[in-house]
Amino acid sequence: MTSFALTAILSFAVALAIGPSCLKWLKKLKFGSTENELGPESHKSKQGTPVMGGVIFFVPIALIGLILLIVEREVCLAMALATTLCFAAVGFADDYIKLSKKRSVGLTPKQKMIPMLVFSFLLSLWAYLTPEIGPTLIVPFTGNRWDIGVFYIPLMTFILVGTVNSANLLDGVDGLLSSCAVVDYLTMGAICLALAASAAGGGDTPPESWGPLYGVINADSMRKLSFFCAAAFGAVLGFLRFNTHPARVFMGDGGSFTIGGALAAVCMISGTSLFLPVIALAMFVSSLSDIIQVGYFKYTKKKTGAGKRVFRMAPLHHHFELGGMEETRIVWMYTAATVLLCALSLGTFIK
Amino acid sequence: MTSFALTAILSFAVALAIGPSCLKWLKKLKFGSTENELGPESHKSKQGTPVMGGVIFFVPIALIGLILLIVEREVCLAMALATTLCFAAVGFADDYIKLSKKRSVGLTPKQKMIPMLVFSFLLSLWAYLTPEIGPTLIVPFTGNRWDIGVFYIPLMTFILVGTVNSANLLDGVDGLLSSCAVVDYLTMGAICLALAASAAGGGDTPPESWGPLYGVINADSMRKLSFFCAAAFGAVLGFLRFNTHPARVFMGDGGSFTIGGALAAVCMISGTSLFLPVIALAMFVSSLSDIIQVGYFKYTKKKTGAGKRVFRMAPLHHHFELGGMEETRIVWMYTAATVLLCALSLGTFIK
Repeated sequence: MTSFALTAILSFAVALAIGPSCLKWLKKLKFGSTENELGPESHKSKQGTPVMGGVIFFVPIALIGLILLIVEREVCLAMALATTLCFAAVGFADDYIKLSKKRSVGLTPKQKMIPMLVFSFLLSLWAYLTPEIGPTLIVPFTGNRWDIGVFYIPLMTFILVGTVNSANLLDGVDGLLSSCAVVDYLTMGAICLALAASAAGGGDTPPESWGPLYGVINADSMRKLSFFCAAAFGAVLGFLRFNTHPARVFMGDGGSFTIGGALAAVCMISGTSLFLPVIALAMFVSSLSDIIQVGYFKYTKKKTGAGKRVFRMAPLHHHFELGGMEETRIVWMYTAATVLLCALSLGTFIK
Repeated sequence: MTSFALTAILSFAVALAIGPSCLKWLKKLKFGSTENELGPESHKSKQGTPVMGGVIFFVPIALIGLILLIVEREVCLAMALATTLCFAAVGFADDYIKLSKKRSVGLTPKQKMIPMLVFSFLLSLWAYLTPEIGPTLIVPFTGNRWDIGVFYIPLMTFILVGTVNSANLLDGVDGLLSSCAVVDYLTMGAICLALAASAAGGGDTPPESWGPLYGVINADSMRKLSFFCAAAFGAVLGFLRFNTHPARVFMGDGGSFTIGGALAAVCMISGTSLFLPVIALAMFVSSLSDIIQVGYFKYTKKKTGAGKRVFRMAPLHHHFELGGMEETRIVWMYTAATVLLCALSLGTFIK
């Protein structure tokens, strides 16, 4: 835990140190936000806030991830870093195009989805073929392992793409995604440390049913993976300095793809992907509300000729915003729910 | 951990459930804030925000604490609850007088200090005489135990009074004390669970030097104490619903005394009081900056005839506020520092 904390503090310090220069650089490049015309009216005032602020946490995550990889030479760290970089690349490409062309849509949905699907498929295949990871998933709350064989590949592909897209949808209110992500990374760090403790055999924590897990998950790998979580945790905590309401910078797609990618990566590697709908419920409901809204609109339009909406606006946080809830209170609500759900999830690993 | 999370969720739900009625009741009683004339100019606009909102988290803490005590019949829980109630009584008395007389000062400093000193002395004596607690303190980072004998009583009296007063000083910006307190209670819960795990003997976590600790701290007591932390954690997290910027209610002295009292109690009982300057650094610097400011002012006034100030205004958070920092960013800074320091402290207990 001491190494975890020190890694987090280092990453936090890097984010804070590069933050002001990044802001200046983004402003100089006139990388201001072009608010989506479909967003809430009140967001019009946010026009001009620099975007692509995701670099502020991307740099420490990538940098510390790379140093860890070089020092530790660990396949888990390589996979975590590769996953983060792949998705970050798509996100930052989207941001760059959006900004250099001064429009609110960058890559077309297809141009985003195809590389994401390809990356996700390849990463899932890699995880499937790596003996330390393999096709087993830990079931939330019971702690049982579930070996799903070759179905692991399509399922994990779906989870990776889904998580990254959901993180992207959750990013719509000052500090919302970053606050939830901080809690998620801390939780994943604790889960990795708990898995390391049980794999080391000395733990008092694992349910009896975990027997076979000991052979598979390597205590040392999980401990090293926890440092990656620490880097992500510290970096995003530092980024909140600039992103908390009133935001001085937005993370952009590059940022949200980095956050989603790093989180999905850590879950994939530690076999805890099935925990994502719990610990990242905030992301999950953003996607779900979007799907419901669009689906219901299309359905009612087809049936009655006039499209109806379920929410005032999707994703869900805009529904609350248009209902008169302050941004800070929306952030409180999502973060508090995430904290409590994460505490509940930790119960699977810590008695 | 599952019981911890469920207790926290219950406490959170109680705070949310009673919050709106409390707000209505406080508004009806015209218990609006009378801003201190010595506070920052910008706070004048906060005049009229209901205070004494501390009841919103005091009720769930006291209620769940009492239920736990009745069910578990545990001396640690009795002590935690008694400490919290003693300080809360002083705080709420101060609030009540302040409000019923519509002035910004309630009890005189002496009228506050005397009962606080008496309570603190009696509680320290009780802890000293309780074999499970006794006069030993865990040293931060090394994890060694330090038996300070009868000096425990004056030291603990000072720590109790100091923590409660410091918590009171930290309460000056929307959501500042509550955010830091949430992190502190969660950390203390984790420390209690880690102590329980090491006391149970199965843990892989305690430093070798902890040998004698096993005989003293009872695994079961520490586990039960963690539920008290969970109640406090959940309740204050729920209160943030109403206290986060822009605040709809202030906690008042009753609230800050409850927070300080409960935190100091949990540290006293688990023998981790020496961690307070680390995990509650935010409170500590508030006191320290106040002492420096007043001391320097008096010193310079005596020496040169004109009093000089070190900070724009004390406690420290007002210094940042007058420097142009937004309230939300001050809360970010204090909370982020608390999170990182808490993670570092946990390293003493969790490898």
